[in-house]
Amino acid sequence: MKRILIDMDDVMAETGLKILDTYNTLFNTNFKKEDFNEKSFTDLFKADNYLKVRTEIGKSGFFRDLAVKQNAVEVIEKLYKVHDVYIVSAATEFPESLSEKVHWLNEHFPFVEWQKMVFCGYKHMIKADVMIDDHTKNLDYFEGETKLLFDAMHNQKVTGYTRVTHWDEIGKLLL
Amino acid sequence: MKRILIDMDDVMAETGLKILDTYNTLFNTNFKKEDFNEKSFTDLFKADNYLKVRTEIGKSGFFRDLAVKQNAVEVIEKLYKVHDVYIVSAATEFPESLSEKVHWLNEHFPFVEWQKMVFCGYKHMIKADVMIDDHTKNLDYFEGETKLLFDAMHNQKVTGYTRVTHWDEIGKLLL
Repeated sequence: MKRILIDMDDVMAETGLKILDTYNTLFNTNFKKEDFNEKSFTDLFKADNYLKVRTEIGKSGFFRDLAVKQNAVEVIEKLYKVHDVYIVSAATEFPESLSEKVHWLNEHFPFVEWQKMVFCGYKHMIKADVMIDDHTKNLDYFEGETKLLFDAMHNQKVTGYTRVTHWDEIGKLLL
Repeated sequence: MKRILIDMDDVMAETGLKILDTYNTLFNTNFKKEDFNEKSFTDLFKADNYLKVRTEIGKSGFFRDLAVKQNAVEVIEKLYKVHDVYIVSAATEFPESLSEKVHWLNEHFPFVEWQKMVFCGYKHMIKADVMIDDHTKNLDYFEGETKLLFDAMHNQKVTGYTRVTHWDEIGKLLL
């Protein structure tokens, strides 16, 4: 049994797609996921506009209706049964998101007990064997043995990590 | 520099006193803090009544107006400057409390950055040197070197721990 830390945004939930939709709606643009294959959010989005998107992210409701990543439920439920799984989300920057994230987990991942949810800022002080995250800022300071970078729009240019693009791959690695 | 985990309820905030007030108001009783010197919550409170109090605890607003423990602000601010302090609250059982706890911290402890807040269930996977907590269920599974039991109504009969009753004592131990 390994202790596994699973991030929420862009790992369990399609947060990036909602950020993209929010940007397109606010600024009447038509960016698509594929536009980020070569360029980062900050390359494509205007800085002032992105600040306005962050205001939207901070509002009540933003996180409550996020789509679930394909096969996340099935694989995480299996992992949860055989490993010591924690859902760890850096979410305290957006206080209004916190209860929504619990309710979202209760709706889509009802097997996750409240004891196994962690909402934090930094993650490096959490001791575990495996971290699944889309941000190198979290993976770089993780002291466990296995670091999996979940493929996301904003990390397309990142190299040097074990990249996973679908939950089925994680299932094959950890089940 | 040590990493210090500080609990919120009954360590930074007078949560027990509000639970007592809530019980007295709901059931027209007149329990006082001193009544718990010899008996536990569960000895004095009727089980059915206590369940109703828990419903109140789960409602929006319960945690937002808690009084701050005497000298907590002054001592924690000093600790924060010289140690690696995290505020760690087992709060995911009460989802509506989460944003309130961030706002409460922002109001009374504005120097605590969002990166240093942790809302969780279990705490044993957080690696640190010192834990300050009122619950033995957290202290018992903590792997760090120093465990301080913060004096609370519900732990009066607990023995075998280093008990602290005031923030000034913690200041003397850790500053």
